[in-house]
Parts: sequence; structure tokens; C-alpha cells
Amino acid sequence: MGKQVKVALVGFGTVGTGVVKILQNHGAEITRKTGLTFELAHVVDMDIQRDRGVALPNGVLHNDLARAVGDDAVDIAVELVGGTGIAGEMVMDMLKSGKDVVTANKALLAERGEEIFAVARQQGRCVAFEASCCGGIPLVSSIRSGLAANQINAMYGIVNGTCNYILSGMSSQGKTYEVALQEAQQAGFAEADPTLDVNGADSAHKLAILGTLAFGKRIEFSDIAIEGIDGVDLKDIRYGQELGYAMKLLAIAERSEKCFSLRVHPAFISEDEPLARVSGPFNAVSVFGDAVGHTFYYGRGAGMMPTASAVVADMIEVAQGNTGRSFASAPGLGRQAELAQVCPTDKIMSRFYLRLSAVDRPGVFAHIARILGENKISISACLQHESVSSDSVPVVIMTHLARQGDMDKALVELEELAVIKAAPICVHVVTPPKDG
Amino acid sequence: MGKQVKVALVGFGTVGTGVVKILQNHGAEITRKTGLTFELAHVVDMDIQRDRGVALPNGVLHNDLARAVGDDAVDIAVELVGGTGIAGEMVMDMLKSGKDVVTANKALLAERGEEIFAVARQQGRCVAFEASCCGGIPLVSSIRSGLAANQINAMYGIVNGTCNYILSGMSSQGKTYEVALQEAQQAGFAEADPTLDVNGADSAHKLAILGTLAFGKRIEFSDIAIEGIDGVDLKDIRYGQELGYAMKLLAIAERSEKCFSLRVHPAFISEDEPLARVSGPFNAVSVFGDAVGHTFYYGRGAGMMPTASAVVADMIEVAQGNTGRSFASAPGLGRQAELAQVCPTDKIMSRFYLRLSAVDRPGVFAHIARILGENKISISACLQHESVSSDSVPVVIMTHLARQGDMDKALVELEELAVIKAAPICVHVVTPPKDG
Repeated sequence: MGKQVKVALVGFGTVGTGVVKILQNHGAEITRKTGLTFELAHVVDMDIQRDRGVALPNGVLHNDLARAVGDDAVDIAVELVGGTGIAGEMVMDMLKSGKDVVTANKALLAERGEEIFAVARQQGRCVAFEASCCGGIPLVSSIRSGLAANQINAMYGIVNGTCNYILSGMSSQGKTYEVALQEAQQAGFAEADPTLDVNGADSAHKLAILGTLAFGKRIEFSDIAIEGIDGVDLKDIRYGQELGYAMKLLAIAERSEKCFSLRVHPAFISEDEPLARVSGPFNAVSVFGDAVGHTFYYGRGAGMMPTASAVVADMIEVAQGNTGRSFASAPGLGRQAELAQVCPTDKIMSRFYLRLSAVDRPGVFAHIARILGENKISISACLQHESVSSDSVPVVIMTHLARQGDMDKALVELEELAVIKAAPICVHVVTPPKDG
Repeated sequence: MGKQVKVALVGFGTVGTGVVKILQNHGAEITRKTGLTFELAHVVDMDIQRDRGVALPNGVLHNDLARAVGDDAVDIAVELVGGTGIAGEMVMDMLKSGKDVVTANKALLAERGEEIFAVARQQGRCVAFEASCCGGIPLVSSIRSGLAANQINAMYGIVNGTCNYILSGMSSQGKTYEVALQEAQQAGFAEADPTLDVNGADSAHKLAILGTLAFGKRIEFSDIAIEGIDGVDLKDIRYGQELGYAMKLLAIAERSEKCFSLRVHPAFISEDEPLARVSGPFNAVSVFGDAVGHTFYYGRGAGMMPTASAVVADMIEVAQGNTGRSFASAPGLGRQAELAQVCPTDKIMSRFYLRLSAVDRPGVFAHIARILGENKISISACLQHESVSSDSVPVVIMTHLARQGDMDKALVELEELAVIKAAPICVHVVTPPKDG
């Protein structure tokens, strides 16, 4: 009873502070439940002056990364530096010096995962990354282990809390994108530079990781089609609501017979879907397995304590040797695995929401309907309010399932119509499979 | 690469057939993902004639349990017999003969878990039981490992699909309890003898298991206060809906400063809660951890393939050695653990829904309000429709938080009032903590 585990924590920011808090407050309980006693041997950060509100024993906090890397007594290195540069070199140095690694860094794994996982395998070490996707939700382990008996057919996730906070603010309080973003920044749910969140890249990083686990195939970050929320107009959120839909930034992975569809984009989903009701900074993912059917996971996807919860859970699994065993056999994590064959975007079938600014004149709707019909796109609902301005009127159309390539062609033709006054707005309408 | 794992499956019913299907259909993929190749060495059942729609190699299916127990080449025994008698002896025989055990049997673990876990520890073996709670949802592993860094403060679960199917039918289609039960039986969601489901015992079995994992304390099945749905009246579901509440059979585990509240009973929850929207045979559990906040897990809690999904996931974890390592250190599973101190029922704080059949006469409401007030119970809402019958009128009252003991006292006093014509109906109103 009572294995001592020495830890080097690199990056003493928000999440790092959370990890220290959990070890200090729950260390004894963790020992009681797992037989493991974690000892923070090194806490490394450039800034060793700032008060984080937690006390560390003398000598533990320092800025000498090489000292932590060189300490052979350390069992586990926790990487909380972020970014794909220094963090990557540090992780590989830690692995090469014989330490297992726990990381919350989705960008690093999505963009340099193959390289890092390969080093881990060469060294007989492992990399744990529960905290890299959806913070405190035990999603990585649920997909990798809990659903291991399934062929996973689809995943639909709200995996970026910043975007969800902004879209929730727009939807529930009628704020514009700019105002909602500003409030998210003030509330601490968006960075000063929110680019990676709002442009969809962060969601795609997580999708690359979760898709690799779900499908057991290698997924290149660059194979994911990405569209962010930075162009979302409050008007479209409101029209969607009128039609019974909520707008969410979705990360989508779907298996079809020959290929995988991997994409991140704003999407309308029916208000009856559990995903539609996920609001504020929360994350949630629907996962469909062939045996289990629909499963759904919900919780806080970011923040000090939820992310620290996942980091410490990983430290326990690594120290017990469980991560190492699963890691050794998992394909797509540095072990030779086929690259996922990605479906050509134009072949993807989807429903669509269209908003057109049309001249308010007889015959206009006939023009629109003709172009859609010629492109094999069928209308399922439409909405036209009485015009307030004299020069144009918004026409909102929901379609049945159509091919993305056909829609792209129709959009070009619609824009060329003399009676259409602005570039058409087109949003995917996503309908997860029915189960029950 | 490629560890061979020999399996003895005992109980070739619905779930057993599902396990065989998964191994036959996904065996190769499981090997690719985990390096494990499962071989069904024995499938044991009393009935070796019935056609289950799956083919087994000659000699695998037999009815000689002793032969499976005595086969030293078997690594894992899968117990799908059910019940607490034969299944218990069988599990212990398997452990004593050096096999790890995977089981879906919640009754067995809730009622004889200590005995079984103790034998497993003596033998240096483990027992895996993901399938015992909420079928395909990876809930056992999420609570035990995924949230291991948390002090878990509360759980609220819909953990019996039969009851949820019945209550959903009553709520959404206005069926009486009897009709909804009959339809659940016809649809295969209720057994011919549904007693253990509808009386709440099955939910309490699962609560005992999940509570033990969440709190790391031993929970006696007999310490759980249990009330089933067999007494639920459609009228109360309708009044609840009018007030914005859905009725669910909830399994509840709450930590307070000095004790744990453990109970199963029908409860009204606000329609805004994710749990309120779980319908049909689905299960879902809200878990609150001090670091992670609110997490929520949803999926199919029973049935051939969802349960088999969890059984096979456990087989993988056991074969990789992960379950064994976690099991060895987990308290409350045969390792000496404190008994959870259970809160006295009368001290529990709850909101309540009350329905009284009152004589329609001046001053009656004053009588009722006086008795509630004298017992320190404050009214938060009430509802009285115009009377259709001449002799009594239903008065519906929602209370603020009150002490269970005070409510019990008030109920006795109310029933004694001459103006109250029938025993008052009282239902808990449950409000999970707010997070976000």
C-alpha cells in the first residue's frame, strides 16, 4: 500500500494552480482511494514571483526546466505550458528522460501528436490527455475504453466553451456577436485574443484527437473542414429560433461506408436535441456506437478546476499503469495506423438553412425555387416576414437533405440573380441519427 | 502483439447473445485496437437447444458449469445468470479457481458484494461490473476513474429504464400506470414480473454500487430508503406538469457534513433539468464533483446490445490488467472501508408536492395552511381547479425546503382534519445544485 509518485508540473498558470489545489486538498483521500501518494517534486514556470494563492514547499517552484527534465526520480511530467513549440520539445525531452507525460494541450497533440506518440513508444512511455478534450468530462476514457466494443458511427460535439458562451449570449439575450464576445472576455470565458476559439481551430484540434480514438485511424488536422463563428449574424440565430432550431458550433465526425466526414462549423440543430440545450460555457458530446446506440456526455469543458480534475485523473491512471497498457495497444497514437479516408466535401449530405436578401417583387420566389430545384435541392420550410425596408426582403429557406456540392453550385447561381441583393447566407442543419 | 484471452460465458440469454454477437462481428477490430483476441472457450446455459440466432463452434455451448469452472485455461468468467443465489456461488467458484469475473448483476453486488469482493481479493483476482449500472453508459469507470480527483457531493440518477418508460408513457400520453406498465411489457421494456423494477429495488441496487464508488465508503443496501412507482397516480403527474415539473424515479446520493442521504423515490424535477428530458427506456445520471462541477451521462441502460457493450468493454479492461490494478486499491469493494454514515430520514431537507382531497367549503385552505405553518413548512405555489364533484376538491401545494420529519408530522395532522377526505399524496420535489 502507498506508492509514492514524483511529479514535475511544468506551467504554473490557471490549470496548474488547480492541480496543486486538488493535490493539497484531496491528497489524503486520493491515497485512501488509490493507494497513490503524489509528491510535487518540481513546479516549473518562467514567473516564480506571482502569488497564485497556493503555498508550495521551499525549492519546489523554480524556472529551471532542465533540472526537472534531468531529475530521474520524477515519474510523471505534467505539461501545462500550451502551444505547439516549446511545449512539444519539453514533452519529448521528458519522454526521452524516462517520464510518462500528462498533458492538456490539444493543439500540440492534434498538430504534432504522431511525432510525440512515436517518441513515447520508442521510450516505452505513455502520454495521457484526458484534459485535452472537454476539460472535466471523462470523454477520452469513455470513447477509448467505455465504448471499445462498439463501431463508433458518429460524434457531434460542442467542444469549445468560448464559442458556446458567445452563441448562448446571442441566442438567449439577443446580443450581437461583438457584444457577446466582449462579455465572454469580461467573464473570463474568452481570451484577450480569442482567434483560435472563434475560428473553430480549437474545436478541430479536439475533433482530431477524439476522432482518432473513436475510429482507430490517424486523422490529420489539415483534413478537417473548419468554419468558425466569427461570421455569425444575430439575424440568422433569430430566424433559426423561429423555425425551432438552435445554433451551435459543432465538431462532427461521421463514418460512411467508404470514408469519414470530419468538420467543424456553426450548425442549426433541433431544439429537441440534447445538444441544443447545452448553454453557456458547458461542453457536450453525443456519441453513437453500433452496440450502445446514443450516449451523451456533458460538463464543463474548461476552467481551472474542471481541467485540473481531468489532469489529476490522468495522473492516477498513469501511476496505476493503466494508461500505459491501453496506450501500448491503441492504434493511431504513434502506432502504425491507416490514415482516415476523408469524404470529399462536395459529396456530404446535409440539410441547409438559407437566407437570401431578395428584391420584393412578383416572381422572385419562383426564381429562387427554380435554381434550387434544378440543383436537386428540395425546400422543407420557408419564412418571409413583411418587408420593413423598401429595397430588399429576407427570404429564409430550410431544405431537405441535399448534396453539399449541389448547394455550392446553387449558391453561386443564386448570387448571380439580379433580384438577390447580397451574398446568400448558408448554414448547415444537422440531424443526429435517431435512437429511441 | 496479440494476447489470447480465454472466456467462459455463463448465462446465454439476451445479454449473453449480445456478447457473442459483438465478439463475432467486431473481434478483429477489437484485436486491432487493443491487441487482445478473445476466445469463447465455454458458453454455459441450462438450455442448450434454443436457437439464439448466433452460431458457436462445436462443443463450446454446454450445460456443465463444473467443466467451465475447472478449466484452468480460462482467464475471464462472464456471469450473466442473474439473481443472488446460484450466480453468487458461481462467481466465487470462478474466483477461487483463478479467474477474473465480469458481471452485469447489480442485485448480486448490492446484496452480496462484500463477500464476493473479499473472495476476489483473497485470490488476487478482480470483479468488473460496468454493465451492472446503466447498461452501455460508461458510468462506473467515469465515477471511479474519470472523477477520481473529486470529492463527489451528489448524484441524481434515472437508473431504471422500465420505470422511466412507464412514467414517460404516463406523462406524454396520459396513460394510467396500469396501461403504461402493460405497454412496457409488450414492448419488451418490462419483465412479466416487473416487481423489482417498479418497486425501486433495482434502482437501489445500482445506487448502492455507484454510491460505494463515488464516496469510497461501504453502503449497505438495507440503508437505502426505497419507494417505487407502483403507487403513482396519473393525476399527480398532470398537476406536476402544470406547475412545470416532470416526475421521474430518482436514485439519489447526497453528501452532507456528517452523513450521506441515500434514497430512491418518485420525484418531481423542474422541466429545465437535463434529467427531466430523459424519456423512454433511457437512463441518465447527474454527478456533482467539487472540482469538475456538474457532469451528466446519458444512454441506454438496458437491452441486449447496450449491456453487451459494457460487458465486452469490461472484458478488455480486465484482460489489459487495468481493472485489476484499480480494483486492488479501491476502498469499499471488499477492502476494509468505513460504512457510510446514513442521514436519519427525518432530518432530510426537501421540497414537497402535496395533493389533498378537501371539502369545498370556506376556511378549508386556512386549516391546511395553519398545519403546514405550525410545522415550519412554507408554501411556494398552489393550484386549485374548480370542483367537478360536489364532495371534494383537489388542492395541490408546492412547498419550500422543509424537513422530512416536519412534513411527516404535518401529513398525520392533515389526514386527521375532518375536511380532508383521503390520505394526502406527498411527492418529493428535487432540485439538484446549480452549476452555471
